[in-house]
Amino acid sequence: MKYPKIPLAQTIVALCKAKGIKHIVISPGSRNAPLTIGFTHDSFFKCYSIVDERCAAFFALGIAQNIQYPVALVCTSGSALLNYFPAIAEAFYSNIPLVVLSADRPKHLVDIGDGQTINQKQVYGSHVLQATNLKLDLNESQYELTDEIPIMKSIENKLEKFLGLQQSILEENSIKINRTLNKAIIDFGPVHINIPFSEPLYDTLEQPSVNPKDIKPEINVKKTNTEDLNQLVNIWNSAKRKLVLVGVNLPNTIHQQWLDVLANDDSVIVFTETTSNLYHNEFFPSIDQIIAPLSEDQFKSLQPDVLLTFGGMVISKKVKAFLRAFQPKHHWHSDPKKANDTFFCLSKHLIGNTNTFLEQFLPKTKSIPSSYKPFWKSVRNHRLVKHSEYLNTIDYSDFKVFGIILKSIPNNYILQVGNSSAIRYLQLFSLNNTLNVFCNRGTSGIDGSTSTAIGYASVSKQPVIFITGDLSFFYDSNALWNNDIPNSFRIIIINNQGGGIFRILPGHKNSENFDTYFETKHQLTAENLCKMYGIDYLSAKNLNQLSDTITDFYTDNDKPKLLEIFTPSTLNDEVLLNYFKFIA
Amino acid sequence: MKYPKIPLAQTIVALCKAKGIKHIVISPGSRNAPLTIGFTHDSFFKCYSIVDERCAAFFALGIAQNIQYPVALVCTSGSALLNYFPAIAEAFYSNIPLVVLSADRPKHLVDIGDGQTINQKQVYGSHVLQATNLKLDLNESQYELTDEIPIMKSIENKLEKFLGLQQSILEENSIKINRTLNKAIIDFGPVHINIPFSEPLYDTLEQPSVNPKDIKPEINVKKTNTEDLNQLVNIWNSAKRKLVLVGVNLPNTIHQQWLDVLANDDSVIVFTETTSNLYHNEFFPSIDQIIAPLSEDQFKSLQPDVLLTFGGMVISKKVKAFLRAFQPKHHWHSDPKKANDTFFCLSKHLIGNTNTFLEQFLPKTKSIPSSYKPFWKSVRNHRLVKHSEYLNTIDYSDFKVFGIILKSIPNNYILQVGNSSAIRYLQLFSLNNTLNVFCNRGTSGIDGSTSTAIGYASVSKQPVIFITGDLSFFYDSNALWNNDIPNSFRIIIINNQGGGIFRILPGHKNSENFDTYFETKHQLTAENLCKMYGIDYLSAKNLNQLSDTITDFYTDNDKPKLLEIFTPSTLNDEVLLNYFKFIA
Repeated sequence: MKYPKIPLAQTIVALCKAKGIKHIVISPGSRNAPLTIGFTHDSFFKCYSIVDERCAAFFALGIAQNIQYPVALVCTSGSALLNYFPAIAEAFYSNIPLVVLSADRPKHLVDIGDGQTINQKQVYGSHVLQATNLKLDLNESQYELTDEIPIMKSIENKLEKFLGLQQSILEENSIKINRTLNKAIIDFGPVHINIPFSEPLYDTLEQPSVNPKDIKPEINVKKTNTEDLNQLVNIWNSAKRKLVLVGVNLPNTIHQQWLDVLANDDSVIVFTETTSNLYHNEFFPSIDQIIAPLSEDQFKSLQPDVLLTFGGMVISKKVKAFLRAFQPKHHWHSDPKKANDTFFCLSKHLIGNTNTFLEQFLPKTKSIPSSYKPFWKSVRNHRLVKHSEYLNTIDYSDFKVFGIILKSIPNNYILQVGNSSAIRYLQLFSLNNTLNVFCNRGTSGIDGSTSTAIGYASVSKQPVIFITGDLSFFYDSNALWNNDIPNSFRIIIINNQGGGIFRILPGHKNSENFDTYFETKHQLTAENLCKMYGIDYLSAKNLNQLSDTITDFYTDNDKPKLLEIFTPSTLNDEVLLNYFKFIA
Repeated sequence: MKYPKIPLAQTIVALCKAKGIKHIVISPGSRNAPLTIGFTHDSFFKCYSIVDERCAAFFALGIAQNIQYPVALVCTSGSALLNYFPAIAEAFYSNIPLVVLSADRPKHLVDIGDGQTINQKQVYGSHVLQATNLKLDLNESQYELTDEIPIMKSIENKLEKFLGLQQSILEENSIKINRTLNKAIIDFGPVHINIPFSEPLYDTLEQPSVNPKDIKPEINVKKTNTEDLNQLVNIWNSAKRKLVLVGVNLPNTIHQQWLDVLANDDSVIVFTETTSNLYHNEFFPSIDQIIAPLSEDQFKSLQPDVLLTFGGMVISKKVKAFLRAFQPKHHWHSDPKKANDTFFCLSKHLIGNTNTFLEQFLPKTKSIPSSYKPFWKSVRNHRLVKHSEYLNTIDYSDFKVFGIILKSIPNNYILQVGNSSAIRYLQLFSLNNTLNVFCNRGTSGIDGSTSTAIGYASVSKQPVIFITGDLSFFYDSNALWNNDIPNSFRIIIINNQGGGIFRILPGHKNSENFDTYFETKHQLTAENLCKMYGIDYLSAKNLNQLSDTITDFYTDNDKPKLLEIFTPSTLNDEVLLNYFKFIA
């Protein structure tokens, strides 16, 4: 086997291996050669080569979203690691573990006019859980480099001191690496390790020259204490209106037993966002469908006494506006790390795993009679009937298309969704409950959804379909420059020739100014990109073409497939706005 | 005319106008609507709409590189402004003025789980000259928002106080905006203004409601003081070996008169990099050609007593290695802002404009007899003969292709060049002296060269040709998603199916591992991208095809043109390495 000669590179590779960090996304470069050599010569690692670092980072994010364990990113010095930043911010707000391993020039070559050099230290600011700047290994050539080791000038026993210093730098680095990798493992988020390497960068060894110690991460199971718990139970048991709101939530993380307890209580309404991956006949999946048509009086009768939230970001702007205007007396948020005061009335952060909390909490609660859920269930059912009616009456449009494609998806698919129109439309439909849904809602950017979906798909046992709008798709077109897209991967683009979502906002539509700077009208199609990257291309411009193409869209193929559905940009906003009136 | 209703947005637009910041590159979004409305409704501004913020920022950089005045970037909240970062770092190290105007949510909506929100304050760290975080305008709806104005709770004369506070925030913001814009104007670099806006975002007025005061930038002409000057003159006049090394330098910034003085002194050698835009028969344009074959003894005879440097980053690694190993007694660097200690022997930073310094300095110096230049001129002339010989002997390869295309470029073109192979090859050739050359050497990234070239071209009176390698081109493929590419724009891609530059490094080439993770082999071509974006596509795979296509490549056309030249990846490194042996 081959090892990089530089001990620091060996240390990083060895510690990633010891901690089971297996997926390594590498972008080409020279300064990172010691790491590339180390990772790619050990078959423990699954390495990927992606040139565009922005795509590389979102691809890694997709893998980590799937495996729920840190994925490493390796890049060269200079602006390379800045291109990771959009994905790093997404990972930070979505609690996805990523490890950036950025190669750097030695400190004495930074800010003196050397090429491909920026100030890499701490470059992600507050958007990483931890940032570590390692020290340069001392090697023979630095024996004389007195600005690196100023102590050398005056000492006698130079070699001995040099070796001691060399060893202590190795150990200090090893501890820092351990601590930073452990942070990503324990606290689920991005971390940054900046690693200076001196030339020569390409030298190798047949045997490793260092054997760094793996310090195991200490994972504490956090629980709510009994006193707090009893207090919460008392409040809960005496409240007739309890709302549970679930944002981004991983599939299969809450036991069915606890979902059933919540479902069988008439004083409890469970609002589940599309990304909550929770399904139950008693739950309320299309929040906006319920609340969009409400009057002030109706809102008052929906206002809960207790609000229990868990999961990540909430997509529905309407539910945020509602709960800010009609605040509950108590808002409790369950999360291992952080509780956002989204509605400005947070009263309790339940620190820890949500399933653990429910396990502690629900057995102590009792179901109480209430008209709260029965009433709103009747509203929900009314809306569902109107929703179906509406779908049947409307013309070919985004809304109609979503109705059709969501029905078309076979069971047990992973549904990756782009920002923001796509995920907002999805929120209005009741989904097939065998689907798992993912969307980059940490920062809600349009910058890396395709790469994320492909990353997820590259390690997924289930087939993945990605549904996106046109602006988001073309933004991340380099995502397709990837050798690891499985043939089962499917993409659907709803191409309404611009940012259709802007037409819904209270802008000044149908002026040239609006078309150019808000809607950003364009004539692009994905056809040529598909040719370029070896993806089967299908398209539809009306209902007939759509039903023709969708039927065998999911059948096995020797290439990934992309279906581009063109919809009339000028109609879509009206159809959507009328929807909310119609379902009242 | 229409104005955004939000006074802060009016203030920014008005101050940009007052300071003559005319080019505004806008990426679509909702939070930035007040700025978009303001800029796009005033015909003073030339607005551009670019969806991918990474491209938008490099495009703006290209405009600013051309006009040498700040260009503004406008984006929405969230990860949008992170995509600017690669271009911001390039601007920082290349001294190019850019103004980031990032819209943000009001402070009370940051870090509470609202969508499309990150911690935008100070996000570019040390890579901007100045970062300013503005305060939210107080509007009627905030009259009751006590966490914004805690003072309100206890006072009587609430309205008066409210108006006073509103006014003082406006004034404070106006001063901050003035200061930050002036910084970009005076000190030539990127600045960041982060701007919180509250909803409603789309309201407009027919007349402006504020009239902010323009505080003019104070530009100090910096000169070297007489005492220093005399000391420098003494050293210069007594030194028999003086080397002038010029990095990135704008065309027509040094008067011919001073170039002639330097050229007519046998004790002075002027090494000009391709990006120096300096041409003179007595100068030494192909530095690597001169020094690559030198022995230690020859290096000693090239070692200068005085090294005078000016301009930006130096591309040649060989000249850096040479001057670090054979340091001059004196290294002076002339620059208005900063002097990099690139060779670890900097003795004097001549603060100020280089032409001003030469104007002060050269009239006091005298030309002295020396064999320094005559000797090295004979070496140079020998190399030039060998260079031509070599070009005639070699097979079809990158090197050969560069020889042909550089000869083909008509007079008075602007030559934009990608990183890093392209610019490194260029350095080996003597260029047509009517060409002006630009390359992103601040961070030397491959991430935005096409966008930069297009930005430059969009405002250029002279036609622009962009020469790039394949990885760099495909990295920035979204650059072509742009409505402002002039029909005269030309692109040449040298496609050697991967990062050919890595083959020259001391790696482990011809292993699968090397091909995948270093060279990053691929089969992509630009043909489908050209179809997608309406660009005429030409290609060449051998010498005959190349001479056939190149002849009318520059003729007028109703679309931009792209010529993709395929070269054999396995041959290129050998041809280049043999070159340095051959020319000895």
